[in-house]
Order: sequence, then C-alpha cells, then structure tokens
Amino acid sequence: MKHLLGIADLDRTELDGLLDTASHFLEVTQREIAKVPALRGRTVASVFYEDSTRTRLSFEGAAKRLSADTLTFSMSTSSVSKGESLRDTAKTIEAMGVDAMVVRHSSAGAPHRVANWVEASVINAGDGGHEHPTQALVDAFTLRNHRGPSIDGVHVGIVGDIRHSRVARSNVLALTMLGARVTLIAPPTLLPPSLDGWPVSAVSNLDDVLGDLDVVYLLRIQRERVGGRGPGELFPTLREYTARFGLTAERAARLRPDVLVMHPGPMNRGVEIAHEAADGPASLVTEQVANGVAVRMAVLYRLLGAGGEE
Amino acid sequence: MKHLLGIADLDRTELDGLLDTASHFLEVTQREIAKVPALRGRTVASVFYEDSTRTRLSFEGAAKRLSADTLTFSMSTSSVSKGESLRDTAKTIEAMGVDAMVVRHSSAGAPHRVANWVEASVINAGDGGHEHPTQALVDAFTLRNHRGPSIDGVHVGIVGDIRHSRVARSNVLALTMLGARVTLIAPPTLLPPSLDGWPVSAVSNLDDVLGDLDVVYLLRIQRERVGGRGPGELFPTLREYTARFGLTAERAARLRPDVLVMHPGPMNRGVEIAHEAADGPASLVTEQVANGVAVRMAVLYRLLGAGGEE
Amino acid sequence: MKHLLGIADLDRTELDGLLDTASHFLEVTQREIAKVPALRGRTVASVFYEDSTRTRLSFEGAAKRLSADTLTFSMSTSSVSKGESLRDTAKTIEAMGVDAMVVRHSSAGAPHRVANWVEASVINAGDGGHEHPTQALVDAFTLRNHRGPSIDGVHVGIVGDIRHSRVARSNVLALTMLGARVTLIAPPTLLPPSLDGWPVSAVSNLDDVLGDLDVVYLLRIQRERVGGRGPGELFPTLREYTARFGLTAERAARLRPDVLVMHPGPMNRGVEIAHEAADGPASLVTEQVANGVAVRMAVLYRLLGAGGEE
Repeated sequence: MKHLLGIADLDRTELDGLLDTASHFLEVTQREIAKVPALRGRTVASVFYEDSTRTRLSFEGAAKRLSADTLTFSMSTSSVSKGESLRDTAKTIEAMGVDAMVVRHSSAGAPHRVANWVEASVINAGDGGHEHPTQALVDAFTLRNHRGPSIDGVHVGIVGDIRHSRVARSNVLALTMLGARVTLIAPPTLLPPSLDGWPVSAVSNLDDVLGDLDVVYLLRIQRERVGGRGPGELFPTLREYTARFGLTAERAARLRPDVLVMHPGPMNRGVEIAHEAADGPASLVTEQVANGVAVRMAVLYRLLGAGGEE
Repeated sequence: MKHLLGIADLDRTELDGLLDTASHFLEVTQREIAKVPALRGRTVASVFYEDSTRTRLSFEGAAKRLSADTLTFSMSTSSVSKGESLRDTAKTIEAMGVDAMVVRHSSAGAPHRVANWVEASVINAGDGGHEHPTQALVDAFTLRNHRGPSIDGVHVGIVGDIRHSRVARSNVLALTMLGARVTLIAPPTLLPPSLDGWPVSAVSNLDDVLGDLDVVYLLRIQRERVGGRGPGELFPTLREYTARFGLTAERAARLRPDVLVMHPGPMNRGVEIAHEAADGPASLVTEQVANGVAVRMAVLYRLLGAGGEE
Repeated sequence: MKHLLGIADLDRTELDGLLDTASHFLEVTQREIAKVPALRGRTVASVFYEDSTRTRLSFEGAAKRLSADTLTFSMSTSSVSKGESLRDTAKTIEAMGVDAMVVRHSSAGAPHRVANWVEASVINAGDGGHEHPTQALVDAFTLRNHRGPSIDGVHVGIVGDIRHSRVARSNVLALTMLGARVTLIAPPTLLPPSLDGWPVSAVSNLDDVLGDLDVVYLLRIQRERVGGRGPGELFPTLREYTARFGLTAERAARLRPDVLVMHPGPMNRGVEIAHEAADGPASLVTEQVANGVAVRMAVLYRLLGAGGEE
C-alpha cells in the first residue's frame, strides 16, 4: 500500500489488514512506555489547508509513538498566502525529506492530485465533502472491538447531513464492505441527490428505524448550514433539527441496552446529541478518539514501515 | 502527588520535595547532553486557552529534556471555536493518550475542573486571577538558591497589581510557607478587598518599606488596567504609577548591595522597573527563566515519574 | 565558528568547509534512517519575527535529523505583542537553555544585535534587505554539485529586485568568493543605488546577456512593489515586468541545453518564471529545497557540534 486516499481504494483484505494492525498498536498505546522505534528516522508532514487540531494531533501523536519526526505545515500562515500552487507546495514539502504527507483540504480530490505529484506516501485527512478514510477506519475498528470479530449484519444508522459529509461517505464504504447494514437517516435536503451504487437504504424519520438499530452514528451538524434563508436553506432551525433528528434524552432512553452510540466529534451537545446520550454507558465517543491514535499508527506503519514494502 | 493545581494544595514537605527535585534537574540542564530518559514514552499536552509562548515553551522544553513527547493545543485555533465544551475538549485530549495536561485558562478553577474529569495529571499554568503555582515554585527556588538553604525570615516586598495577580497569590502562599516575611506594596485600588487569612502586611507607599526589604519582587503592570476612565479606573497614568511604585534608577541606587530584584517577566522597562534595576547585578530576572525549566522538569517528574507512584 | 550572521563574515576556507560538511549530510539525508545523534541534548530555537514556514521548517527538519530538540518562537503570537524588547526576548529564550537561535527579522542587523547579547550561537535566517546566508550556501552548494568541484568562471545572472533582496546580496558574496562571475539583471529602479565594492556587473536588459549565462537565477518578485503609484513606484505592471525580465517559455527555449535555472522559492509562476522553465530539466528549484536541509544541518553541526569547538 503506497497511499491512503479513500476507503474506495481499499479491498477487503487491505481493510482487514489495517484493522488487525491497529489492534496491535492499540496494545502498544496501553504500555507503560507507549512507544516503538518502528519509524525512527522517518518524517511525517501534516499539510493542513483546513484547520483541524484534533485530527492533526491524532496523526502527529501517532507518528511520535512510532518514533517518526513530524513537521507541521499550517497553510493559513504559509507560502500559500503568497499564492504558491498546491503542486509547488507539495513538491517543496517532499523535497525537505518528508516520507509521508497527511493532507487535509477543502477540495475533493486534492490529496489524490498531491499523490500524483510526489514520491512520498499521501494520506487523506479529509478532502472537501469526499472522503475521510482514517475516521471510517477508526469507527470500523471501534465497532469491531465491541461487536466483532465480525460486524456482519450489524445495523448502523448514520444520522445527519449525509450530503455534505466525508465522514458519512467513508463510513458507508467501510462498514458495508465489512458486511454491516447501513441506514442513512436525514431529511431529503441533507441526503445525496442519488444513492446509486451505495448499498444502503435511506429514511427521513429517525423514529421509524430507531428501534431496529444496533448502532446510532450521529454526524456533527454544521451550524452554518441551518437556518439559512431562501433556496440554499437546508434546514429551518436547530431546534427543529433536534426535535426530528437529534438523539435526545427521550430517544436515548428508548434504545435497547446494547445499542451503541457513536459520533466523530466535536459534538454539538443539545443539538444532534443530548448529554444523556453523549455521556451514557453506550457512548463510544471517547473510545473513538483513543482508537484514532492506534488506527493512525497502523496506517503510517503500513505505508512507511514493513507494510509499505510488501 | 497526582496534580499541581495550586500552592494552596501543597504542604511544606511536598513544597520542599519539589524544590529539592528541581535542584537535581538544574544540574541536568547544565550538562553537556542536557537530557534524561525519565519520561520516555510519556506525552505531555499543553492546553492553552490564553496565549503564553513563554510559559508554554518552558513546559515543553522541560518535557523534552525528560524525553517526553509533547502535543500543543492552542485553543484559539481549535475545536473550541466550534463551541466544544471544556469538558469534551479535556476528555478528547486525554483520550489521545496524554499523561499530563498543562492548562492555562482565563477562568479561575478551570484546571481544577479538568482534574475532576480526567485520569491524567493536570498542572495549572495560570487560571485567571487565581494561581500560577509553577511561577511561585520558580521564584521560591531562585530565592532559596541565593538566600538558602532556608529563606526563613527573608523579607520580600511584592509590588504592583496584587489584586488581579495569580503570580502574587501563589507567591504569597509559597514564600510564607517557607517562612519568608511578605509585604504587599500597592495602592489600595490594586490590593485585594480583604487580606483575611493571608499572613502578610500591606502598605501603599513603597518608599516607606524599601529600606527594610531583602527582595523587591515587581509584578508586571497590565497597561489596560491603567488610565481607564470613570469608576473602573485603577490607576490614573503609567507615569504616576512609576513615580510611586516603580523600581526606578533612583530607588535601585538606594537599595543595600545584597537586596535581590525579581520579576516574572515579561518586563515593562521604564514602567514597573528601570533599566538600571533590570540589568543590575542584583537582578535575578534571567535566572528565574532558566530555573523555570528545571522547576517544571521537577513538577513533571514528580507527577509522572517515580514521584507520581509514591 | 560561533555564529553565522552573513556571508560577509566568512572567508573562503570557512565557506568551503561548510559546503564540504553539507555534502556529508546530504548523504545522511538519503539514508534509510536519515538521522544521526550528533546534537542529541542540544536545543535549537526558531525565533521568527517574520513568518516563513518554508525556511523555519527547513531549519527545524535539519535540527531533528541531528537529534536536537526544537522550540519555535513565532513572534506574532508572543510576548512581543506585549511590548517586550528584542534584547529581553533574546535573553529569555537563551535562559530556557537554547544552544542556537535561528533568527529572522525585518530589520537589517537584528541577528547581529542578538549575537552580542547572548552566549548561544545565532544564525541569520534573513534580516530585512541585508543577508540570508543559508540561502546563499544552499545555492552555492547546489551549483557546485552540478558544475563543481570548482565553479570558478561560471557565469550566473541574478534577475529581479536586487535592490531589496537579501538573497541577492548573500548570493553575490558567496558566488563571487567561489570565483563565479555574477551579472545583475534588473531595471535601474531595482538595482542598489551603488555597486561599489561588489565585483559584479549590471545590465538592464535580460536579452542582452541571456545567451552568455551558465545559470539564470530568478528572484521572487514582491507583488507589493509593483504597480504602486507616484514616486515610490518601482515597476509599472507585472505584465511589463514579465515581458522584460521574466524567464518566459520563449526565453527558456533559447537557453543552451546546459544552462541551469534556479529560484529560491516560492515561485510566482507566470511572472518571473514560466511553467516551461520552472518544470524543465534545467530547473534546480526542487533540488535547492532538498539541499536546504543538508546545508542547514552542516551549519548547525559546525556551530554546535565538533565544528563549534575548533
């Protein structure tokens, strides 16, 4: 494996391999000295055109636990403001001796273009509304640890702005590849224009399916997409969104005791998720973050360590 | 010791223990290879809701000299701007595998709340007008190195905006616990409303006590608190502040040769301290900074190394 | 060698020594584990009063490959905004146990002043319109690797805003010291008021000398210096600049096959350099970046490692 650009590029064997490697590194992160020398002398660069402290530090923490060095290119303060092209920036960063570039960009496909330009490994850390593959790996890994080893037939409801969500897209691809049954739950305005080729069903009423779900996966609602005026408006008010699609305390109380609650964070408490659900025993939100480091260690190791030479 | 939230939580034995450990690490920082493997595999996160490059880098430098990894959460550019709560942010950072969180926040008590939410060790790096315990440890350590081993009976005058100063509060607690005699020197508007329970005296005329001091400790004057209009005004002009409370060249010349001058930095030269005092042989200002790294190494080591397991 | 403040301070032996050391470290950067323990336990601080992600990360990457620790002082977010003087900031940074300070500042001579105040080694990473010595070392090193071992008699044309360019000044000094013949190519408004003491010639028509050059070195045009109004105007329009001084596709096609093209980056494609020139086989632009890390390793090693003790 040279790059990780999207779940769409993985086959089942590769996906399983990454999750198995993550299990190993999860054990490493729990050691007294939570560090291995696997990538000593390698350099991992974060190349973030959109700010995301959370994702960036998860990758950089993973790199450090593998003994790699890290360089951070935060593009709001760099040459980009001087008008340098993505290609020139990528070539420059690679020339500094970088072995892997973790790229976040607001444009779908930007990491793929970078991968065509450089010899270094490229990891997509979120590209526009397209993919966020490591988040989906984290979520599949977390779910497997609770419902596995197989998650075949597990019913996952993904609730929220599916249309604009790279997290939703990557999760649909990963979870269905692993045999899970996925239902998208959103108002029609927040569903993709077409679901052709997605092996999922879609409903616009959370309460219709809530009783049948094994996992409730809530997406973060982007406040700027709510309450707009005129034809661009996707949803009238946050209050109405919560009433219809939020995992409220009342809905959380109705869940079977074994139903799991997931969220990629950061949460809008009181909007898509109530305190009672976020902090309840079924919530995997904090565990998702912890698994994030182990999964990203696995990805870096597969691309740069022994895995990259297969 | 699990956390360091304030000097108020320490007893004399713990305070002495930290200062003794700092002596050891001061020696380490002066070695040819100024680094020890004590905290290899541990991760220290800086979680700064207020910007302070100076304090943050002192902690991060200390962590690196102990071979710990560091992660920096600068909250002006993180999820906080997306409205995530302090609790969710703290839980997220901890979940990334952080062993200690160094927290600076504009609200008094914020680090204490974090300590209730997480299993990691929490160090208060300044919380509102409340405490700044490592600065007080640095100052006590510096003073002990010059007047010690005991500073019992040493007379320290703390000059400036005592009322709003976490540095003043932590220093009063630390210095008096070590037996020093502390006099607060400020206009009535810059003194706390009540000194009940503080074993100190207060005067509003620097010249009245200057001749009796062994140490002149100058606080940084916050320019925004001077020259305001109406009832919120604390002091009319910087010039008048300097005339009455500044360690001017004239006052510095009157000090006994053995009187020490201290300041937590950054200095407003020409306001609370004249060049002649800041750069004179009695000034410990630069030494305070140097000791800052050794003292923070001691704190991290006591919380995360052998000391944390006692 | 204690500091690297400017090429003007180096003699030929020191310059050759740095380039030879860089050759060694270039080999290190190409190893499987591209890291050596030479500066373990040393701390290198970046002290940047002007933002330059590219230069800063080149230095920090170099420091990490030598196993040094790094601290970044980005002055837009530090105590400087609280009015602390350059001297106090420098003394504070040094007191934190820093062995070398990499200083970028908008004022010519700022690193020299810092060097007078601190015991640490100081490296000039660009001071106003004065010098940028490591860039010139990178360029000389790159050129020597292609035309060496001697570049005696090689004809280098430096094109652009010579007058305000620290890169031009440092390159003139380094290249002529190594025996190269340098021609400055710029409109009279962008030439220094006097060339007294510079062993170079100057022309205001690129096409007059293009056929005679062995190396075309293009400076980045600062867009804010073009198209101004009134007496401060240096050049009327970017389009006219490109027509007269740009390495356009047409001019690039006229170059002899062995002519090399250099640029310190970031490039304004379509302004001072056309795509055909930037991406052609003669372009050394990416190689300059890669050599940047090796050269900066050499500088750090000569100042802090064995070289510093000579």
